[in-house]
Amino acid sequence: MAHLLSTSCSMKVSPSEKLSSKCWNIGSTKYPMSFTQQTSKSAFKSLVHQRNNTQKLTVVRATTVPLNQETKAESGTSSFENNGNTSGRKRVMVIGGDGYCGWATALHLSKKNYDVCIVDNLVRRLFDHQLGLDSLTPIASIQNRIRRWQDLTGKTIDLHVGDICDFEFLAETFKSFEPDTVVHFGEQRSAPYSMIDRSRAVYTQQNNVIGTINVLFAIKEFSEECHLVKLGTMGEYGTPNIDIEEGFITITHNGRTDTLPYPKQASSFYHLSKVHDSHNIAFTCKAWGIRATDLNQGVVYGVMTEETAMHEELCNRFDYDAVFGTALNRFCVQAAVGHPLTVYGKGGQTRGYLDIRDTVQCVELAIANPAKLGEFRVFNQFTEQYSVRDLAALVTKAGEKLGLNVETISVPNPRVEAEEHYYNAKHTKLAELGLKPHLLSDSLLDSVLNFAVQYKDRVDTKQIMPSVSWKKIGVKPQTLRA
Amino acid sequence: MAHLLSTSCSMKVSPSEKLSSKCWNIGSTKYPMSFTQQTSKSAFKSLVHQRNNTQKLTVVRATTVPLNQETKAESGTSSFENNGNTSGRKRVMVIGGDGYCGWATALHLSKKNYDVCIVDNLVRRLFDHQLGLDSLTPIASIQNRIRRWQDLTGKTIDLHVGDICDFEFLAETFKSFEPDTVVHFGEQRSAPYSMIDRSRAVYTQQNNVIGTINVLFAIKEFSEECHLVKLGTMGEYGTPNIDIEEGFITITHNGRTDTLPYPKQASSFYHLSKVHDSHNIAFTCKAWGIRATDLNQGVVYGVMTEETAMHEELCNRFDYDAVFGTALNRFCVQAAVGHPLTVYGKGGQTRGYLDIRDTVQCVELAIANPAKLGEFRVFNQFTEQYSVRDLAALVTKAGEKLGLNVETISVPNPRVEAEEHYYNAKHTKLAELGLKPHLLSDSLLDSVLNFAVQYKDRVDTKQIMPSVSWKKIGVKPQTLRA
Repeated sequence: MAHLLSTSCSMKVSPSEKLSSKCWNIGSTKYPMSFTQQTSKSAFKSLVHQRNNTQKLTVVRATTVPLNQETKAESGTSSFENNGNTSGRKRVMVIGGDGYCGWATALHLSKKNYDVCIVDNLVRRLFDHQLGLDSLTPIASIQNRIRRWQDLTGKTIDLHVGDICDFEFLAETFKSFEPDTVVHFGEQRSAPYSMIDRSRAVYTQQNNVIGTINVLFAIKEFSEECHLVKLGTMGEYGTPNIDIEEGFITITHNGRTDTLPYPKQASSFYHLSKVHDSHNIAFTCKAWGIRATDLNQGVVYGVMTEETAMHEELCNRFDYDAVFGTALNRFCVQAAVGHPLTVYGKGGQTRGYLDIRDTVQCVELAIANPAKLGEFRVFNQFTEQYSVRDLAALVTKAGEKLGLNVETISVPNPRVEAEEHYYNAKHTKLAELGLKPHLLSDSLLDSVLNFAVQYKDRVDTKQIMPSVSWKKIGVKPQTLRA
Repeated sequence: MAHLLSTSCSMKVSPSEKLSSKCWNIGSTKYPMSFTQQTSKSAFKSLVHQRNNTQKLTVVRATTVPLNQETKAESGTSSFENNGNTSGRKRVMVIGGDGYCGWATALHLSKKNYDVCIVDNLVRRLFDHQLGLDSLTPIASIQNRIRRWQDLTGKTIDLHVGDICDFEFLAETFKSFEPDTVVHFGEQRSAPYSMIDRSRAVYTQQNNVIGTINVLFAIKEFSEECHLVKLGTMGEYGTPNIDIEEGFITITHNGRTDTLPYPKQASSFYHLSKVHDSHNIAFTCKAWGIRATDLNQGVVYGVMTEETAMHEELCNRFDYDAVFGTALNRFCVQAAVGHPLTVYGKGGQTRGYLDIRDTVQCVELAIANPAKLGEFRVFNQFTEQYSVRDLAALVTKAGEKLGLNVETISVPNPRVEAEEHYYNAKHTKLAELGLKPHLLSDSLLDSVLNFAVQYKDRVDTKQIMPSVSWKKIGVKPQTLRA
């Protein structure tokens, strides 16, 4: 397990402590530090105290104390508004709330009047440093993100910085926040990252599997009725030659019938970690009566949600590199900078896709319509299916409207996967709960391609070509070239 | 990961260093230490040196240097005999070779003229100390076991003591031994142990999953053609309402057909760890061309194999306690000491069973008929199906022949499992390779019940009743009562 610095601090932000409205320069290329950020960094430092025990390097914990009372007074609204629950607002812990999907989700839920707490060890930012990568969009520190959100909306978001693989830390966050729902995005989420070398393969499975086991134990011990909304992946299913159902399949075999977990065929150590999680969660639902929703999410594209668009300091990360970038985001960046779109192999690889605005909507729907106690529920969370070839064609066409000349090349596939295959995955359960999808054809220009063009000066073209091979992974630690 | 003392030593045993033939007292109750053991312990001590780095507590490594040359000269047989391969004998690494199935297998393969190397961190012996348990049969140290085997047969067994979760250690054993086959028993193998508390649940999954990932990487890096024979469990399948196939099932769904991994429904953190292993192994077979056989083993009973019966110092362990004891072994011990047989709940729980003499036979068959490169093969390794009720009835009947008055009681089921269910599991693949089963009705008296009667004075009746509850597992570390 990767442990961070052993420091602990807590911070109380007064709503009257106003931030300058332009504290952070979007056009600059590398993590610009504004005056406000410097100030708050100093404030943090002064509160930090070093633990004596340097053996157990575990928790960087910063708590932004809830400011519900002040917020209520300031905004003039009741904290119970839009809730219908006179006993208080629903409390949602978002693990991994500083990440791509997590940040967008935390803001969306806060906007929708949930009490939100972010739990994150911020290790995703460390991966960028270690691999020499950076988000296309400049992103603010989690502390400034949360302050800005409060400044704009009067809503507070609790912050606990630490590692959920450290159960002592996780237990404390559960006991202090008492969540009604835990949304768990807090995993290493890149397939190529898990295939860099042995130690990253091991890290990915250990971090993801043990973190999730800890969350299950925390729910059992401290919040038995708490609903776990866990991010899985459509990649758990692989590419079977039959229709993919939502989590379970009814099989008639030798004259008998049963409904069983859908067979899993994951194709990276990362995807496998999610398969392991699903099995572990299903067991605890049965054995302990945990209620859980496994959201088998497709490939997410886009960067903007209604909430992140409110201020540049709320801007979400946008990964286009070969390790963390998802296919469509990468293609849009390639189109913007005049790099040919890199289709891996034949390009017949077909997957489910969704707009990040639908990610936040799906999570909200899962929370608002919780699983029953003891129920293990699986939703396939995507809106449309495309092959990689289809995506390249769509980006080419959209690029033309912006006057871009987009080329496509095939590069040797660094992965081991079928390049032409049957794919038909069901995705009706979230639609039945009310999901209104943003379709790619409508979103491509405004939500993705325009963004890529806007930030094209920040693109590091060295990060675009595939750098991690499924077949060549070895036991030697890979320190990527500078 | 549980790390052991940071010591390192190597030991060369000369074939002329004869051991007294009765160096170890069977009748005594607690780990008797014979003169020879004391001597060898001192010999070890003198070779041990403490590492400076106490941070990384990893390897207890003892290597019994191969003595093939001397052995050959002494026994007058060619080391290539019974092999048909003029380039040398097949080299088999048995990970977990000091355990219940591992020790019996290591001896059997050595007898069959394989070059055998045992890799084990001996942590199973530590579990006994920590939980206050003991094998019914007194067992010798691994060092004395190996010396005795050499003394009796002239055959040497290599020994590497260390943790396969420590890749540096594992890599060294691979490079020095160069296995043609790895038989991997080296996992925490008790469902109740994995359900004692959070830290043991985490230990079980971490130890088993990461250990197996390391083995896969070692094969890829150092012995690409090496055949992995991995011990899985029939418990991976759970108790579906349809027939259980061997690893894969052909499904026709909405007019299309595919053969997919059989759906898994494991019911403890231990069983789940084996499910995770199976998925990880299947992936590496596909991505890297690893050849692997997953032996989904049923519940093993019995203690004696042809080889362990040769000398009391070769005797295998026999667990009857509620944590490590398997159902039939426990029933036989209960019958021997006049304790009622403890059927959990209704007793309709049906599983596959096999004699330990068939375990060693099955492993030998899998090695002799290896999987093809890139093939992930699954065999269901058991010979007969019984319900717990059936077993109780069989033991009662067998007990009567020995003049024992055997009673059966139902105790509250500490597990979460169906107590009445359909169960029909296929097990034809090993039979097709030539398995000649020992059937329970023939073995019960001579191989199990008589043994239990012989050692009944060593029984600790406090260890018999279930002590671990699937529902009550919590986050507090459980130190079992003295």
